Amino acid sequence: MNEPISGPAFFIGKGDDTLISFGSGQPDMPPPIEAFNILKTYTRFKYGLIQGEESLRAALTPLYPQAAAEHFVITNGASEAIDLVLRVISKQGAKVLLPRPYYYSYPFNVLFAGMEPAYYDLDKDGKIDFPAFEKEVERCHAVLINSPSNPTGTVQEVETLKKIEALCERLGVWVISDEVYKDIIYVRENYLLQGPRVVTVNSFSKTYAMCGLRVGYVYSQNKELVDGIIEMKTHTAMNTSIVGQMMALAALSSPRSYVAHNLEMWKERRDLMYDGMLELGLELWKPEGAFYVLPKFKDSGRAVSDLYHNYQVITYDGTWFGAPNRIRFSYALDASKIQEGLRRLKEFLGKEHASY
Amino acid sequence: MNEPISGPAFFIGKGDDTLISFGSGQPDMPPPIEAFNILKTYTRFKYGLIQGEESLRAALTPLYPQAAAEHFVITNGASEAIDLVLRVISKQGAKVLLPRPYYYSYPFNVLFAGMEPAYYDLDKDGKIDFPAFEKEVERCHAVLINSPSNPTGTVQEVETLKKIEALCERLGVWVISDEVYKDIIYVRENYLLQGPRVVTVNSFSKTYAMCGLRVGYVYSQNKELVDGIIEMKTHTAMNTSIVGQMMALAALSSPRSYVAHNLEMWKERRDLMYDGMLELGLELWKPEGAFYVLPKFKDSGRAVSDLYHNYQVITYDGTWFGAPNRIRFSYALDASKIQEGLRRLKEFLGKEHASY
Repeated sequence: MNEPISGPAFFIGKGDDTLISFGSGQPDMPPPIEAFNILKTYTRFKYGLIQGEESLRAALTPLYPQAAAEHFVITNGASEAIDLVLRVISKQGAKVLLPRPYYYSYPFNVLFAGMEPAYYDLDKDGKIDFPAFEKEVERCHAVLINSPSNPTGTVQEVETLKKIEALCERLGVWVISDEVYKDIIYVRENYLLQGPRVVTVNSFSKTYAMCGLRVGYVYSQNKELVDGIIEMKTHTAMNTSIVGQMMALAALSSPRSYVAHNLEMWKERRDLMYDGMLELGLELWKPEGAFYVLPKFKDSGRAVSDLYHNYQVITYDGTWFGAPNRIRFSYALDASKIQEGLRRLKEFLGKEHASY
Repeated sequence: MNEPISGPAFFIGKGDDTLISFGSGQPDMPPPIEAFNILKTYTRFKYGLIQGEESLRAALTPLYPQAAAEHFVITNGASEAIDLVLRVISKQGAKVLLPRPYYYSYPFNVLFAGMEPAYYDLDKDGKIDFPAFEKEVERCHAVLINSPSNPTGTVQEVETLKKIEALCERLGVWVISDEVYKDIIYVRENYLLQGPRVVTVNSFSKTYAMCGLRVGYVYSQNKELVDGIIEMKTHTAMNTSIVGQMMALAALSSPRSYVAHNLEMWKERRDLMYDGMLELGLELWKPEGAFYVLPKFKDSGRAVSDLYHNYQVITYDGTWFGAPNRIRFSYALDASKIQEGLRRLKEFLGKEHASY
């Protein structure tokens, strides 16, 4: 229970130049200049609508077929979005199905909402094993889908996602689809899960590199759910920071080349990272989206510790993500640092060959 | 259950000039110019510490005796502070003692945290009736104290607050002290509740007129509680908006004359409102802090509706605050509007004399 906290929370904010950090899951480039430009003359400070600014919600509608502004709630990042959705749909002790490996907050989110996590393992390619999913889902109240995935870097097959839509609709199971990496995907366009029980969670953090500003959102066609989220947020947080929302709106209206350019850069880094790790003899999935690799390590806990203390390389133990014997490397850092990090990793692997 | 939502949530954001709004509980003056000035050159966008920026927490320490930066967690307003505290200390089904009248979110916050609200009534002067409090507190896990109070405008006696500190310490009951109006107080300096089981909730919203920016905080000397809040916030929201925190820091370093000047203005408005209502024959408590009056009305629901539809005056039904037969008027609007609002109220009372 302590590791996921002491891990990421401990490493965030470290800025020592001799360190190479493959830890933090945040883009290193700045947000679109348009987002900062609005600050020069910014003067709003009053409460806004709990649901989020109408202008921002309206600006999101072109991204979702058949969407209207009323289908969105703007939240304090995807974290609050997931927390609110789970709390609103919560039934005491009900099961919520998670993939394993999972984003490290998911089990906590489920528990904090008074429910119980249930798990199925992704297959050897980091994909959803549909029979395994099908077997577990019947006894669940909700499922969490995360494609592209943090920490696996894999993207789920459209065919599988469609089967999940149909099955969950038939069973009356909620589908919470965390699509925060929808714009960082290398193999195809993102597939938006849809259906009467589907709730999409998204964020401006990854697409527009504004993690610290904490602007995310929930999208759902289910009016009762949206109303329930607004009601809860009225008492637990009120409106999401007005200035953050206005920066998000400005980011949305920035040229599409911002996103396209970043995607090119992510892809170059992905290649550097993946090819470099293959060359070192590591076993890992080729990232299809997001900006993580999750190679196998025999003793991941000791490797993370040694890499940090002896090589000044920050990585996250796969154990925190339900993936013991793996380590998560984020490649949200520039090419020269990736190369230096790989050089140190090679040194580490050479010395530690006997044990790894 | 629906009224507190449909009420405040409905009225927030209305900007029709013919309306006089005694509804919304937010200052109408701008934040200190220093808070906006930092935006002109603002460029930070990355994740911050979940606990909040070290600089902001350090800047808060002079306001609390024996405080260190580690005793604070910066939150999305006081709302998230209360939500997090209640969730972290939660025991399924345990009772949390609330004063009645109460701030309308409190019962929801308690329920959303898996606990049950219990109530005691304030006495005829809007003060804590200690014997009534004492009788209820023994079977409670926590109590919520709100002085100066929204919606009553009363400030609790220091002697009573000290008795509550001692009693709760002896019983091992948590005291959550919501002091968001600590700088808007007309009768004495604010009394900071203290003790091993005391958790203080505060905010920049009222003192620095930055409600929409959503920056508040928890202060507690209890390390286990602070750690629990940080752990939960890691998964439910992550850091509070970085730009909001930097604006709060700038506000804190603005000249103290900002707060003193506003207090003078609040006092003038208080006098205008209180004297005006006495003249209209209404029965109400003289506000000692915050910016609300809560006069008695025979049928508060119908009066709120009539005032809105026939006189374009927005008020909040006391029923939403556990005070049936009262109406909450906020005086967070300028003197000329207060006068026009009182004029319309006089007209309404004259016409409706028979029923009110």
